[in-house]
Amino acid sequence: MGLNMFNFDYYNPTRIIFGTERINDLDNYVPKNANVMITYGGGSAKKFGTIDEVKQALGSRECIEFGGIEPNPHYDTLMKAVEIVKRENIDFLIAVGGGSVIDGTKFIAAATYFKGDAWESWINNQPLEQVLPLGCVVTLPATGSEMNGTAVISNTALKAKLSHKHPLLFPRFAILDPRKTYTLPTKQVANGVVDAFVHVMEQYLTYPVYGKVQDRYAEGLLLTLIEEGPKALTEPDNYNVKATIMWSATQALNGLIGVGVPQDWASHRIGYYLTIHHGLDHAQTLAILLPAVLDVQRETKRLKLLQYAERVWGITQGNEEQRINSAIQLTREFFESMGLPTYMRAYNIPESAIDDAINYLKRFNLLPLGEHKDITAAEARQILSLSY
Amino acid sequence: MGLNMFNFDYYNPTRIIFGTERINDLDNYVPKNANVMITYGGGSAKKFGTIDEVKQALGSRECIEFGGIEPNPHYDTLMKAVEIVKRENIDFLIAVGGGSVIDGTKFIAAATYFKGDAWESWINNQPLEQVLPLGCVVTLPATGSEMNGTAVISNTALKAKLSHKHPLLFPRFAILDPRKTYTLPTKQVANGVVDAFVHVMEQYLTYPVYGKVQDRYAEGLLLTLIEEGPKALTEPDNYNVKATIMWSATQALNGLIGVGVPQDWASHRIGYYLTIHHGLDHAQTLAILLPAVLDVQRETKRLKLLQYAERVWGITQGNEEQRINSAIQLTREFFESMGLPTYMRAYNIPESAIDDAINYLKRFNLLPLGEHKDITAAEARQILSLSY
Repeated sequence: MGLNMFNFDYYNPTRIIFGTERINDLDNYVPKNANVMITYGGGSAKKFGTIDEVKQALGSRECIEFGGIEPNPHYDTLMKAVEIVKRENIDFLIAVGGGSVIDGTKFIAAATYFKGDAWESWINNQPLEQVLPLGCVVTLPATGSEMNGTAVISNTALKAKLSHKHPLLFPRFAILDPRKTYTLPTKQVANGVVDAFVHVMEQYLTYPVYGKVQDRYAEGLLLTLIEEGPKALTEPDNYNVKATIMWSATQALNGLIGVGVPQDWASHRIGYYLTIHHGLDHAQTLAILLPAVLDVQRETKRLKLLQYAERVWGITQGNEEQRINSAIQLTREFFESMGLPTYMRAYNIPESAIDDAINYLKRFNLLPLGEHKDITAAEARQILSLSY
Repeated sequence: MGLNMFNFDYYNPTRIIFGTERINDLDNYVPKNANVMITYGGGSAKKFGTIDEVKQALGSRECIEFGGIEPNPHYDTLMKAVEIVKRENIDFLIAVGGGSVIDGTKFIAAATYFKGDAWESWINNQPLEQVLPLGCVVTLPATGSEMNGTAVISNTALKAKLSHKHPLLFPRFAILDPRKTYTLPTKQVANGVVDAFVHVMEQYLTYPVYGKVQDRYAEGLLLTLIEEGPKALTEPDNYNVKATIMWSATQALNGLIGVGVPQDWASHRIGYYLTIHHGLDHAQTLAILLPAVLDVQRETKRLKLLQYAERVWGITQGNEEQRINSAIQLTREFFESMGLPTYMRAYNIPESAIDDAINYLKRFNLLPLGEHKDITAAEARQILSLSY
């Protein structure tokens, strides 16, 4: 008979404001007397004029800028923003950028009200009672952070990268204008597609619990990313392609496809090590690890792997092992075709990283991993070896 | 190149509380000092103990019951509830039932604050400034009302059935326990499946605007309803089947699949006539009208009809007309297999209904209809004739 769908709660109050010429809607959703901090990353939001558009839409509201939030946003950088927020009595945050800026801004929103040491509060998942309200203007579709209550922060001094999840961290609104993604470097577009793809897989490729709607939604996103991803690389200013990828990335991690079903996240957790210790982009770590996780976990994932092979890749020929192998191989080839190598050695990572990663997973108590919590150090080593 | 996806806003703050033993969660989401009115329909919610469960979960909160809300809830009945709400200072509404009870309760929530004549306020779409908060305990999956801001109310004296839509009408929460649907009469289960199916079709089967995610989601819901609908009739207490239908029905009309794409709703608008003048169930009217709308509008719907034929019904053989005919025929057969005849004459409706319906559509200024607003009286007559 199989298992029952799990009980679930679903609550997502973020308002999506999608399409062209939508930045002016800021005026409707930011309080008239707000004292705003606009946060951004490396400067392209400024260079391409998005920060100016935001300021113009804010009209006479007071606002200051805080730029320089890094990919995998750093605790130290963000604490500087917290200091300014407190000193300047900022009461509304607007993040302009991708997942790193949005995640970082969520941390600022929370840390403004932390009591005691902010890092300790974060890693101990101190329950939040109050946060600053925040909105987003998304320029890089990838993480889905614009429509969820999760943020991942890195602490370079401690070599740690840890996430926090809380309903108060949902942005009030997210403005998604696909044209804001036309100027992205190809590498970031590719990373975003692979990131969204793996977000879907972490919630889909586990074991069946009769989550038929969730499965169809997940498969729909995977098929869409496979169709549109390559086009996004060659047609950077194709509105519909960019709009479709933008909406797919938001849908991939706004909680909807994960309700009532088991979730994996092993590729993410192991991948954090490769980012923090070897400087790989988040999406690169996922491109490396996901195929290996699927391979090593093929027994417990068998039924869903066969479903994935058939519905997403159209594989109906061959015995079960052949179909599973083909599906994993096509997944790998998709990542490679997006320009992301799928083995550690291609990034010049030393083989000693395998031992180091295991130590990292142990040090931060991240083991066992996976939807069955059956990835212990031995399986993690297998995955890492296959990934090398 | 085709058309661009439309700009859209998406905002849906309803909290979904899904699964077994969830009625106790009322205690978390109804204010401790609330003065509650519990609304319900014909009595099965009372007979099968759901009302008692709700009262038990509410503990020491004051609550009164208001039963007898009809299918296609009547203005006169609801106004009696409004009177009691005002007299008893009710400040929270809990609807226990399906779409009719929830829609009726939304009207009560709004009409409590209407100034002047409530019916006039409703049909003139008077902007709402305040409504009573409401939550739902769903016992009949069908309309999706538990997760949207729309309500449809009938006025028997005026022979009118009209809808109102407003963000304040979103329920605060919706409790969906699939086991509460085990005792539903087969006819209501079947109606619910057909209702949800047609809700998807009204948002999907129009013309393509590169809404690839929306299309995949819609197709996923259609495939799921086709798979699970017949099982629901023969396995009334199969948890997973009922859970899947319940979640599909909510997803079918919570706004998500309709963002950024054109919508039709001609079958709904014409169908209201058959309900209000001939007493047909809402789903029966849809089963009659949808196949005829698809047939008469086959030119403007051609591309989506071909996509529907292939992706939902697996039709790849034959020329375009044959594929379209097969898809419409299989849609009809699906409704028939659920026990809903798809021609008016099967319900003993006189042929004069065709003229009457045209007059009804004219009287309430409902023409022209459809995603292109090209269904005038002539096309409506064609549709009705084909439906007879």
